[in-house]
Amino acid sequence: MWDVVSLGEVMLRFDPGEDRINTARNFRVWEGGGEYNVARNLAKCFRRRAAIVTALADNQIGRLVEDLILQGGVDASQILWRETDGISREVRNGMYFMERGFASRPPTGCSDRGNTAISKLKLGEIDWNVIFAEGTRWLHTGGIFAGLSESTAEVASEAMQAAKESGAIVSYDLNYRESLWSGRGGREAANELNNELLTFADVVFGIEGFETSVTGFSERSLRDAATTMMSRHPNIKILATTLRDVHSASQHNFSGACFSDAQVFRSKDHMNVHVLDRVGSGDAFAAGLIHGVLAGESLQTSIDLASASGVLAMASAGDGSSATFREIATLAQGTKSTTVR
Amino acid sequence: MWDVVSLGEVMLRFDPGEDRINTARNFRVWEGGGEYNVARNLAKCFRRRAAIVTALADNQIGRLVEDLILQGGVDASQILWRETDGISREVRNGMYFMERGFASRPPTGCSDRGNTAISKLKLGEIDWNVIFAEGTRWLHTGGIFAGLSESTAEVASEAMQAAKESGAIVSYDLNYRESLWSGRGGREAANELNNELLTFADVVFGIEGFETSVTGFSERSLRDAATTMMSRHPNIKILATTLRDVHSASQHNFSGACFSDAQVFRSKDHMNVHVLDRVGSGDAFAAGLIHGVLAGESLQTSIDLASASGVLAMASAGDGSSATFREIATLAQGTKSTTVR
Amino acid sequence: MWDVVSLGEVMLRFDPGEDRINTARNFRVWEGGGEYNVARNLAKCFRRRAAIVTALADNQIGRLVEDLILQGGVDASQILWRETDGISREVRNGMYFMERGFASRPPTGCSDRGNTAISKLKLGEIDWNVIFAEGTRWLHTGGIFAGLSESTAEVASEAMQAAKESGAIVSYDLNYRESLWSGRGGREAANELNNELLTFADVVFGIEGFETSVTGFSERSLRDAATTMMSRHPNIKILATTLRDVHSASQHNFSGACFSDAQVFRSKDHMNVHVLDRVGSGDAFAAGLIHGVLAGESLQTSIDLASASGVLAMASAGDGSSATFREIATLAQGTKSTTVR
Amino acid sequence: MWDVVSLGEVMLRFDPGEDRINTARNFRVWEGGGEYNVARNLAKCFRRRAAIVTALADNQIGRLVEDLILQGGVDASQILWRETDGISREVRNGMYFMERGFASRPPTGCSDRGNTAISKLKLGEIDWNVIFAEGTRWLHTGGIFAGLSESTAEVASEAMQAAKESGAIVSYDLNYRESLWSGRGGREAANELNNELLTFADVVFGIEGFETSVTGFSERSLRDAATTMMSRHPNIKILATTLRDVHSASQHNFSGACFSDAQVFRSKDHMNVHVLDRVGSGDAFAAGLIHGVLAGESLQTSIDLASASGVLAMASAGDGSSATFREIATLAQGTKSTTVR
Amino acid sequence: MWDVVSLGEVMLRFDPGEDRINTARNFRVWEGGGEYNVARNLAKCFRRRAAIVTALADNQIGRLVEDLILQGGVDASQILWRETDGISREVRNGMYFMERGFASRPPTGCSDRGNTAISKLKLGEIDWNVIFAEGTRWLHTGGIFAGLSESTAEVASEAMQAAKESGAIVSYDLNYRESLWSGRGGREAANELNNELLTFADVVFGIEGFETSVTGFSERSLRDAATTMMSRHPNIKILATTLRDVHSASQHNFSGACFSDAQVFRSKDHMNVHVLDRVGSGDAFAAGLIHGVLAGESLQTSIDLASASGVLAMASAGDGSSATFREIATLAQGTKSTTVR
Amino acid sequence: MWDVVSLGEVMLRFDPGEDRINTARNFRVWEGGGEYNVARNLAKCFRRRAAIVTALADNQIGRLVEDLILQGGVDASQILWRETDGISREVRNGMYFMERGFASRPPTGCSDRGNTAISKLKLGEIDWNVIFAEGTRWLHTGGIFAGLSESTAEVASEAMQAAKESGAIVSYDLNYRESLWSGRGGREAANELNNELLTFADVVFGIEGFETSVTGFSERSLRDAATTMMSRHPNIKILATTLRDVHSASQHNFSGACFSDAQVFRSKDHMNVHVLDRVGSGDAFAAGLIHGVLAGESLQTSIDLASASGVLAMASAGDGSSATFREIATLAQGTKSTTVR
Repeated sequence: MWDVVSLGEVMLRFDPGEDRINTARNFRVWEGGGEYNVARNLAKCFRRRAAIVTALADNQIGRLVEDLILQGGVDASQILWRETDGISREVRNGMYFMERGFASRPPTGCSDRGNTAISKLKLGEIDWNVIFAEGTRWLHTGGIFAGLSESTAEVASEAMQAAKESGAIVSYDLNYRESLWSGRGGREAANELNNELLTFADVVFGIEGFETSVTGFSERSLRDAATTMMSRHPNIKILATTLRDVHSASQHNFSGACFSDAQVFRSKDHMNVHVLDRVGSGDAFAAGLIHGVLAGESLQTSIDLASASGVLAMASAGDGSSATFREIATLAQGTKSTTVR
Repeated sequence: MWDVVSLGEVMLRFDPGEDRINTARNFRVWEGGGEYNVARNLAKCFRRRAAIVTALADNQIGRLVEDLILQGGVDASQILWRETDGISREVRNGMYFMERGFASRPPTGCSDRGNTAISKLKLGEIDWNVIFAEGTRWLHTGGIFAGLSESTAEVASEAMQAAKESGAIVSYDLNYRESLWSGRGGREAANELNNELLTFADVVFGIEGFETSVTGFSERSLRDAATTMMSRHPNIKILATTLRDVHSASQHNFSGACFSDAQVFRSKDHMNVHVLDRVGSGDAFAAGLIHGVLAGESLQTSIDLASASGVLAMASAGDGSSATFREIATLAQGTKSTTVR
Repeated sequence: MWDVVSLGEVMLRFDPGEDRINTARNFRVWEGGGEYNVARNLAKCFRRRAAIVTALADNQIGRLVEDLILQGGVDASQILWRETDGISREVRNGMYFMERGFASRPPTGCSDRGNTAISKLKLGEIDWNVIFAEGTRWLHTGGIFAGLSESTAEVASEAMQAAKESGAIVSYDLNYRESLWSGRGGREAANELNNELLTFADVVFGIEGFETSVTGFSERSLRDAATTMMSRHPNIKILATTLRDVHSASQHNFSGACFSDAQVFRSKDHMNVHVLDRVGSGDAFAAGLIHGVLAGESLQTSIDLASASGVLAMASAGDGSSATFREIATLAQGTKSTTVR
Repeated sequence: MWDVVSLGEVMLRFDPGEDRINTARNFRVWEGGGEYNVARNLAKCFRRRAAIVTALADNQIGRLVEDLILQGGVDASQILWRETDGISREVRNGMYFMERGFASRPPTGCSDRGNTAISKLKLGEIDWNVIFAEGTRWLHTGGIFAGLSESTAEVASEAMQAAKESGAIVSYDLNYRESLWSGRGGREAANELNNELLTFADVVFGIEGFETSVTGFSERSLRDAATTMMSRHPNIKILATTLRDVHSASQHNFSGACFSDAQVFRSKDHMNVHVLDRVGSGDAFAAGLIHGVLAGESLQTSIDLASASGVLAMASAGDGSSATFREIATLAQGTKSTTVR
Repeated sequence: MWDVVSLGEVMLRFDPGEDRINTARNFRVWEGGGEYNVARNLAKCFRRRAAIVTALADNQIGRLVEDLILQGGVDASQILWRETDGISREVRNGMYFMERGFASRPPTGCSDRGNTAISKLKLGEIDWNVIFAEGTRWLHTGGIFAGLSESTAEVASEAMQAAKESGAIVSYDLNYRESLWSGRGGREAANELNNELLTFADVVFGIEGFETSVTGFSERSLRDAATTMMSRHPNIKILATTLRDVHSASQHNFSGACFSDAQVFRSKDHMNVHVLDRVGSGDAFAAGLIHGVLAGESLQTSIDLASASGVLAMASAGDGSSATFREIATLAQGTKSTTVR
Repeated sequence: MWDVVSLGEVMLRFDPGEDRINTARNFRVWEGGGEYNVARNLAKCFRRRAAIVTALADNQIGRLVEDLILQGGVDASQILWRETDGISREVRNGMYFMERGFASRPPTGCSDRGNTAISKLKLGEIDWNVIFAEGTRWLHTGGIFAGLSESTAEVASEAMQAAKESGAIVSYDLNYRESLWSGRGGREAANELNNELLTFADVVFGIEGFETSVTGFSERSLRDAATTMMSRHPNIKILATTLRDVHSASQHNFSGACFSDAQVFRSKDHMNVHVLDRVGSGDAFAAGLIHGVLAGESLQTSIDLASASGVLAMASAGDGSSATFREIATLAQGTKSTTVR
């Protein structure tokens, strides 16, 4: 049915464009969420059949998020719609405000994602048999979804196991949001949860204890960190990570690397890249790698697609990328930028 | 210090303009809240010194609301700033989405105001002595604020008593939001609370059991309803209400009436008024009346100012009115619209 | 698989908003097309599973149209993608410029739909067995599509017959675009084609020779015109038409009527309706009726839904309506407009 | 060379659109000026060769005004460019802020046109021989230009005489701006000046002492007022005036009448017209009449064109009209508004 | 009459600004076309009298293009207006969609210019005697116009010969659009056509077989390539070309060089220039050189003006440049950027 | 009462955003003015109580400026409101048009500030006793205000003396606007005035005769220039200046230095900073230093805050900065830019 199913939150993003949140009078809206963004990029850029499993409160905010998901090309049929209490006391849709930053002014924002429908998702509410019965090839989820609440941690585990049983590949992003874990044990508690869930993962984005620099990249250090992780979780087949040096909000070095079968694959480096909006570039990277693997490409090709996808995601506004496959493939091959018309 | 102090919630309003919430890609933001709007109109249109007593979570959303309040000309020094947990689980800023409607399409929206900082305000957290010590002349609050939670009901009572003791006039708006009372006893429970609080009110907006039509206006019926209310609350000196016939979202009849000292005062009628955005017109009406009373105008003049203020508030977008005092006074006197330049 | 499949062109619409085409500097884009609009409204307003069968040139313009179709909630999987020659000499995507009008200034525009991919669609290029095999319940097409070229007339015929054979209901809109028929025989030739195609129609929008006025409505005249048509095409089960009086671009009377089993059903009248953008209101009317029939509603209820849907489509910009089912149903029942929040 | 030359000021207009000047954050700019608007409408709507004689300070503001004039289709070659002092102390470009009004909120604004380049124009600075030598058919000017300063009054006189000598028709608009005459004798002084200049006019817009109502129109009263004026100025051949009833900023009755050869011609009435922006409708009326006369149309046709032109000018934003000749002619003939596509 | 007349297509350009074509909802419009852009820059930046000879279909799209041309300051009186068939089947206006690119995302777009009015222009339809009779000093055309169709190739030849006969200077831009020549012989056929037309050219933009790099510039290689071309076409007096290194869509090196009388002139280099929108910078370069020659400047000064003009064209959106002559001259002299106010 | 009071002009700034003044159709408005900007940044970024002493004409332009000041968080109660003559001949509000520049295109604009209300401010019109009586800690003014007219020079002197007498600290910015002094003696006359006023200054922004380069910074040269100034004005306690190298409009080096007690303090350097809008960065620098001194920070910390404040002001549009104190402090400490959410 689907090439990829993502499990995670989809929030309404408020983006003040060139302006700043605290003085803006107009906001553009996007939809966003770490796990969802991967599905969206697979659908929009890589033309994969992708679906999102999530829950939304059934009010106008939720319907706007659905409208954005539909535009994103992601199958919205697996959304659980929750009845709202009148004022979003008990069940809400997540929202976040995020500005893109400029030069010495970093991207910044705040999230308003307490008491969301998805954070209250419970074991057994989703019929995974339906989702994985019909030939779904890949499940993607990660640490943001799992970190929303105690119950989403359980749902993540349930989903990953169901996927594995069905023969689907499972990917997991170690993504950590400090705000989600404040008052709940912080980074340490998050790591513990990740470690539980990694037991069911085939592909992992993020490598514990590895410094993700481009110019300071050390193959040995990546190999060591990856080997340690894999020795703890021998089920993991691919470990992948972005590499990034942040000169300023407007200029990054960007690259990526992955580890598999004791081999390190490193993508072409993208140096001194002008950045419009970095939000979602890590997710675009993940989408590129997943596409490569689904398409049977080599890991070298896949990691090059992943980095190119991440770089191009920073060249337009919004969490999602608007790059086409042709653009990604061209950049992945290192071909020069020329005007097409 | 201030002519008027309002006690109530200030929310961030998302306004899709000519578009609809569920398909919009851009939103304009305003600040709004029933009690606050009265203060804002007194400051901006009537050039009164007005302050808002409220609580906001100290994140970028709260600071944006502050920025809007400052533009509104309302003194923001009495805002209680609350520390945020990372994701607005326990303490948030209220938001609401509201579209203006057009023709047969009514104005509609949804509010996301659960767990807000202001709804958690408690007895004793505000030092009313400071607020009423320095010559503050008027306190305005109402049923929306009082209905936010058990504790805000108590704070409303506390504030109204403190105001009365200081000699300030107290006005109360019976405003009812169904969404606030769903699961908490509905209209009946709200009425009960109102009845408790009316004990401390001098001026009341809204007349229980009275049909607020323009063409169907019955002086006798108003007199009866008002007399009944005043017999229950002999402390009430003025009862006022808007009158309105809604032909469509784009066309209303608008007028107003008040009752005091056994006399009915009815404003000029504004028939077949084109409507851009009706939200906040009742609050603009209240502001007009309060200004009239503060300025020592007759009740006839005051009710005419109130209706003119309400009508003009519907001629521009946003909860707040952008009318000038001169415009309101001209319309209140029934003078014809002419181009000024 | 789908409740409704529409067969027709989807064009990119350029809308200058409040401005005029010939002096504008910014255009908003929508997707639009008579037959498609019906599918879109069934999907977006009535939450029906709808698909569009069409052809697009595979360039950025076509991909933008796809992006709009996805947002519209219409299944885009049945689009035939045509390779472009570099400059759209032989195969193009249709575009049209349309401004909404205001008061004495009528809506006006021009279409640029020569040599489009869809106009070159030929017999046998679509596998109707696939489209109607899986339980598709309804096919909608009409005189615009059929009038694009000689070959689309044939495809319309092919599709309608395939639908009938599969047991699906077939609706046809008599819609006439003068620009399509200039130099090809005009109205007369269009009528001739319609008459051929009506042989395969169950539901027809448009009644030949009937004056579609609201205040001048004559039941007898409708009955006569409808009876004449049905005597020629005994296969037709329902004839439906909008009724409209145009006071100005900004104000219409709007209603609808249908004829079936020798009975006339007339909807509630919507008098002096403010109009923002009338384009697509006839298609919204058709969608309302189709939904009613699909839902097993009475024809009286269906025609009321149809008119309400048409009226609400004029209250927002764009070809498509953004009304919700609840809004349509409320208006269809004649309930008064009130603010919801 | 030109069909019409206008002599007058061209200001930069700041338009807050749906918003209000005193709280707006964005302004759209237009060019505008009573005499200029007539030339612009003759060029843009009636496709006449028109030129503006004016003076602008040569800074970026002036160049922006030139850019707008060019877009307006008016020949900008006769603009006198003045060197600026750094801060616009001695020589400036005129600006005005004008909002369109809505319903009970009248259009309002303020002008900032002191010390402008054009107000300092002096006798002898323009070579009228050049302007009228090459077959220019018409000169239009009026009371706004003449009222700018003592010296512009002289220039107006000089221009009108030069035009007459060359055989060109001279039209003059009695337009009065209170702000220009405050401190300079007010309406009385303006009238006195007008009376001096009317000596050189063939066509006059505005009839002294006549009440310009549509529903209260009195042919006798118009005849009387016109006869009085013509007896004072036997050179006047046509006296014309708009008729208008202002129900609200959003709804007017609009019509027009003229007097010539002892005959009254009254145009079709346009009743209950929705108004977007009335500014410039009187100038569009004048353009319509001038076009009619230039085209050799009857005065009845001309006055119908004039009114239709005025009405359509109120259906779009900005001082200038964006109506096409076909639209004006259609409306002048009373044909119903229909969608064209 | 005119300093320069350009012969070529003027298309409507759709520009999604910071967004991308395939997901945008709003487009800004510009007019553009290689040959036209040169005339526009000569008019707007260099304040030269310039006219465009082209053909447009007489519908609202064509009238919008005319509105843009007027704003551009280019004389629109020589446009041939063609009647439209209703749907732009046989005669259309050209349109193109072009996004500016950002960083690793190249500028990209697609053109929709098949069957345009201008592509159907035929020998003898333009009266060149009129155009060159009155002292027109320069004709500019090029490979885009000539490549539109067989007949435009002939018209180009006709125009160039007429110009030469009248004594006007003729410039020709070798500009090549692959999309125009696909299916018509590609680059080779284009070169052949160019070679025919170069027989009538005095000034040529583009040097066959020369690598146009800034850092890799080789004077010898330019000399060789230019000498070869001139030996084939001894009539050519000046050969000029831009030099450019594309680091990314957002950063270029830009320079220029020309060859005349066996001498190479190279402009100042503009290194690491931030780029907003590169489209049209080559045309701005050509305009700078033409102005220099028309003004009697040395070729060194001219080539410096050309490069400065090209660089500044990349600093604002749209095909046309908004630079002033003072800005271009200042940059051409290498003066440092300072704030002026 | 206030931490800082600024004395100076507040103008309405028209900003065409990415576009250019001379071809724009939309302008965003800001308020701005050298002395005012300092107060605004102290209020908005550093959360200081700040007031502006200025004069405005009481029309809609003035009220818009007030609306902007209120949003800026600056106390507007000390504005002197002047009655307008109708057309701003004698008393006006200042306006200026300023575009931000891009790459090789420098920021540029023009001011229209002749005959403004503030330029006509006279000795004795402000009651300095009120302003400095209640514990105001700091007065800031400068060479722009003092240079507006003969009388503002006197008022500056009056204010500075009153401040000194009250014990407040006095800062003065040497800011020079050529346009203000053209025809009034130019730079030399401005210097003379500055020298008179420096007699009353404690803190001075700008160091006469010192080259303000970052890479060419010479501590000795700063020491020499500062010592010379201080020997002339022994009352000066701190001399501070920005350092800046302008690579292009889009890229600067930025730093700052100050001199006090014979010591030079130099801030961290900010190299190759991307610039969005440089206007107001010098004023943001001044605000940072003033805050540091008011907060009792060391001069090293203060100069680092000043530079960070200046750098961040260039990362958003408008004269005023939207940076938060936390952002400034983080950058001042040299911490790396990271995404916060």
